[in-house]
Amino acid sequence: MAAPLALGIDIGGTNTVFGLVDIDGTIYFRHSLSTKSYEEASLLVDAIAGIVHNNIPPNHELVGIGIGAPNGNYYSGCIEFAPNLPWAGTIPLTAMFAKVFGLPATLTNDANAAAVGEMIYGAAKGMKDFIMITLGTGLGSGIVVNGEVLYGHMGNAGELGHTIVYPGGRECGCGRNGCLETYASATGITRTVIELLSSNKTESSLRNISVTDLNSKIIYNAACQGDPIALEAFDFTCKVLGMQLADAVAFSGPEAIILFGGLANAKEFILEPTRLYMEDSILRVYKDTVKILPSELPESDAALLGAAALMSKLLLF
Amino acid sequence: MAAPLALGIDIGGTNTVFGLVDIDGTIYFRHSLSTKSYEEASLLVDAIAGIVHNNIPPNHELVGIGIGAPNGNYYSGCIEFAPNLPWAGTIPLTAMFAKVFGLPATLTNDANAAAVGEMIYGAAKGMKDFIMITLGTGLGSGIVVNGEVLYGHMGNAGELGHTIVYPGGRECGCGRNGCLETYASATGITRTVIELLSSNKTESSLRNISVTDLNSKIIYNAACQGDPIALEAFDFTCKVLGMQLADAVAFSGPEAIILFGGLANAKEFILEPTRLYMEDSILRVYKDTVKILPSELPESDAALLGAAALMSKLLLF
Repeated sequence: MAAPLALGIDIGGTNTVFGLVDIDGTIYFRHSLSTKSYEEASLLVDAIAGIVHNNIPPNHELVGIGIGAPNGNYYSGCIEFAPNLPWAGTIPLTAMFAKVFGLPATLTNDANAAAVGEMIYGAAKGMKDFIMITLGTGLGSGIVVNGEVLYGHMGNAGELGHTIVYPGGRECGCGRNGCLETYASATGITRTVIELLSSNKTESSLRNISVTDLNSKIIYNAACQGDPIALEAFDFTCKVLGMQLADAVAFSGPEAIILFGGLANAKEFILEPTRLYMEDSILRVYKDTVKILPSELPESDAALLGAAALMSKLLLF
Repeated sequence: MAAPLALGIDIGGTNTVFGLVDIDGTIYFRHSLSTKSYEEASLLVDAIAGIVHNNIPPNHELVGIGIGAPNGNYYSGCIEFAPNLPWAGTIPLTAMFAKVFGLPATLTNDANAAAVGEMIYGAAKGMKDFIMITLGTGLGSGIVVNGEVLYGHMGNAGELGHTIVYPGGRECGCGRNGCLETYASATGITRTVIELLSSNKTESSLRNISVTDLNSKIIYNAACQGDPIALEAFDFTCKVLGMQLADAVAFSGPEAIILFGGLANAKEFILEPTRLYMEDSILRVYKDTVKILPSELPESDAALLGAAALMSKLLLF
């Protein structure tokens, strides 16, 4: 019998990465296309189908397609008004893939896909209740309850990045103010540094960098050199994140919170400090019960593995 | 064949109310005992068993026992260190009932039981994703995700009353500060009135009442008379609750939020104002998608019906 493989597809604003993955997380084939080169989503679907059909390894069989995409809705199978993708309106993506391949297809947003990837292949193996936090340009989250992603009534639940930490606080891309992702994200920590540079006179190498050039990587490097502004910015980021995670724990009672993405790679400045701030704010009954763990997915393949993991049930048979 | 009935038991600090309930929510027998009169939980269990056995109506059969109790843990079946009950430590309540009756027994906390009651018999009939909020002395909540109560890893998830609205805000019974229930609850609105009476000089009938005597019922009556302090206190309560519910929506994406309990009975001052404040703070994608509804369970029987509803699956056969 041919061994089953899932096609995992990660659709991003710049590139679309896809690959064939087995139940152990081994990637048999990996390819990347420029998302922006396809004026219509259907043309990208056709291109992927052509490439994949020619690259299924011998003695293997494609059984399903998992897709992670910004604003991907699990229930409708559509990408809904994604500001960073070249296609306007509602794109019935799973229907397109299912038709071209004649196979089941599932779509969800990138953070939910990451959560499933972590549950099947990564740090959340064997867990039934956990929260996945992706600290990239924004803050994405996927909440897993009793072994299933929490999708909610409309298919778009689990948006911790847009819970409000400081009413009337920093302007957010969503049109409101004070959202968690304006503080705890790569752009959030950059804004924090700028604020600190203006509010106090501490010496810092970061004063020599323009606001345009400043980014979380530069801040991380400065923190490694002991720069006080960079260290204070990390501390504040962890404080805000930890405080909000304490509330998230009261909500869904997870076993662990898994941190992923650029900012989470600054492990020594993020993981333990965030846990300590979370413990400062947490309800007594949850004290010392919730782990904060780094992702165990290789960063370059995490999105692809997460998308493929959406089809993991089909790989078991 | 004998028609199946569930025994619903609501264990409160003062009274324990129990009754026999069928799948339609009809109550065949109802009784109340003084919780504090029983030094040991096992004595209360024995007393309930004796009374129930003598009162099962002809052509009916008891098939299971559902129990709602403060600090009731669904997974362990134990009441865990409930400050308002006369029994110390951990009480293995479902084991006790299962042994005495020779039937399956399930335990959860009162707010979760109310959520299940609402789903089986009340305002959430047919819903799979909703949030139940009980506005009593404190603020209890039960979160239903995909037709199941969200219990979390340890069995104690869904504590919205202890998410923090104002860091460093009002002292809470849980030992922290700024929890939602210190603002949005019967005691919360009373504290708000006291604060308003001290912070401004507006005339108000509430100035004639001592802090000891003041309660949410008096505040409601004053609001009905147009008292400006009472009205402002309701407005502030709705503002805080609405703001926090907007975050809860981002978390679990519910179809509706159901409000129950003393304070929620002040419908005209609570339901629509809370919804408007929630809409003010809500993420665009959820705008105008979440209903705020009053409970449809009769207040005097709600806890009993909720407890019985935990056994509803057994009543269907």
